[in-house]
Amino acid sequence: MQNRDAGHTPVTVIGLGLMGQALAGAFLRDGHPTTVWNRTAAKAEHLVAQGAKLADSVGEAVAASPLVVVCVSGYDAVHELLDPLDEVLHGRVLVNLTSGTSEVAGETAAWAARRGGSYLDGAIMAIPQAIGTADAVILYSGPQEAFDLHEPVLRSLGAGTTYLGGDHGLSSLYDVAVLSLMWNILNGFLQGAALLGAAGVDAAAFAPIAKAGIGTVADWVSGYAQQVDDGAYPALDATIDTHLASMEHLIHESEFLGVNAELPKFIKALADRAVADGHGGNGYAAMIEQFRKPVEVRI
Amino acid sequence: MQNRDAGHTPVTVIGLGLMGQALAGAFLRDGHPTTVWNRTAAKAEHLVAQGAKLADSVGEAVAASPLVVVCVSGYDAVHELLDPLDEVLHGRVLVNLTSGTSEVAGETAAWAARRGGSYLDGAIMAIPQAIGTADAVILYSGPQEAFDLHEPVLRSLGAGTTYLGGDHGLSSLYDVAVLSLMWNILNGFLQGAALLGAAGVDAAAFAPIAKAGIGTVADWVSGYAQQVDDGAYPALDATIDTHLASMEHLIHESEFLGVNAELPKFIKALADRAVADGHGGNGYAAMIEQFRKPVEVRI
Repeated sequence: MQNRDAGHTPVTVIGLGLMGQALAGAFLRDGHPTTVWNRTAAKAEHLVAQGAKLADSVGEAVAASPLVVVCVSGYDAVHELLDPLDEVLHGRVLVNLTSGTSEVAGETAAWAARRGGSYLDGAIMAIPQAIGTADAVILYSGPQEAFDLHEPVLRSLGAGTTYLGGDHGLSSLYDVAVLSLMWNILNGFLQGAALLGAAGVDAAAFAPIAKAGIGTVADWVSGYAQQVDDGAYPALDATIDTHLASMEHLIHESEFLGVNAELPKFIKALADRAVADGHGGNGYAAMIEQFRKPVEVRI
Repeated sequence: MQNRDAGHTPVTVIGLGLMGQALAGAFLRDGHPTTVWNRTAAKAEHLVAQGAKLADSVGEAVAASPLVVVCVSGYDAVHELLDPLDEVLHGRVLVNLTSGTSEVAGETAAWAARRGGSYLDGAIMAIPQAIGTADAVILYSGPQEAFDLHEPVLRSLGAGTTYLGGDHGLSSLYDVAVLSLMWNILNGFLQGAALLGAAGVDAAAFAPIAKAGIGTVADWVSGYAQQVDDGAYPALDATIDTHLASMEHLIHESEFLGVNAELPKFIKALADRAVADGHGGNGYAAMIEQFRKPVEVRI
């Protein structure tokens, strides 16, 4: 994306792993004067060839720009790099795209505030190759004025630049929520591929039908969300009772074909509990109440 | 869909629940002489008004057409209705769209063969409202010549008319594989909605980002399938080791916010086992080997 109005805002990128390099490259492509720093300076070479300035120290890198983007291996590394700096953060906006938890994001915000800096926590929902394209979703949380000030620059990183709210922890929470969804989808696909594989069907034969199924469910999500928010779960298609009968088929098939039946049994155990709570005649969205419970029932 | 060449093939539909009514309605719309039967005749009224012929008995219904579609509550009901008939099935193609297991599909095929009938087992991957449209995927398995003979008529039921192979059990297996995928997606969404809900975020706010995430994974499926079939899992994006770090975040967030952490822990337990098997440096597709194992490890 081009953001010509923001083309002269200097920006600093600290941490030049594959993702940090992609971030700095996207800023450079949009014409932002870009300062970079990495523990191993060699990783900056390609970016310097594209016009980036390599700082001699973390302090010099932070001092070079009003907007400082950090993307390193973890929050420990963030603090190790930035803790010694103190004064230089004053008046700057620190955007931390390092993966972490919502709790640590809040602590880091307090830490930045004590040094007079504004803090945005962020989560990158994209692979490095997608940075700077229409496909890159990057989530931000923290003070809105800090986001608004630098949104045009941050949009260089992807069309899906999204502000979630003032709670610094939100981007980490959304991050794991979407990752969880992705793992669940992949597990569902792999469970199906294992089942069909045991009957001699290639995963490649299952893939197009699985993809169509995924697309169908994607279209249900907003309706489910509405029911979750309303706390009312009329069955739009099948009731949980009806689902349970098919879940029994799934367990039977898995055991009959000798593949792992744990996930099918876990799915059914959750549905059984929903029925025990009186939701058998409701739609599947009623399962939200099971996910809200901090129970530890062994299956 | 219009199938004018097949417009004069008579067809019988036995079982007029919501789905059976939708099936008969789709045949009628495409101009097929359609005979129907249901235990409760009143459910046929709407179809008779559209031109269907209501048979007086199951035997009369089967005798009326070379193609007989059955869609009832379960295989027990199929046998209860058809077992007494014997001779009349001879030379006809019975298409059973009733939900069941692959094992029972095979048994029903043998049963039909003893009566001189051809048998196709099928699975409807659509809600009744979608029958007859481009969105309806219906899977068939059994003898190819029986499918080929009646494919033009069966296409009246949906554009996604798909023949899977000669093994009668395949449609039931694909059915539960896709249902499993759907439950996993919905569980993933609901887990995320519960987590974000505990932080004060509406499910409606999560829905568009979840939908984008689902769409992203849908595009990965064919690549994963290729790796599963190849038995080689080079990391295309993140390694399982990297995923594990994020899975720990998910568990931490779930416990910190007091929502159900069982599914996150199950996901991590599977990944831990993949690492123990030496797949930490591989991509997520290596998890297929865990799904293939008939283990019963309690989490």
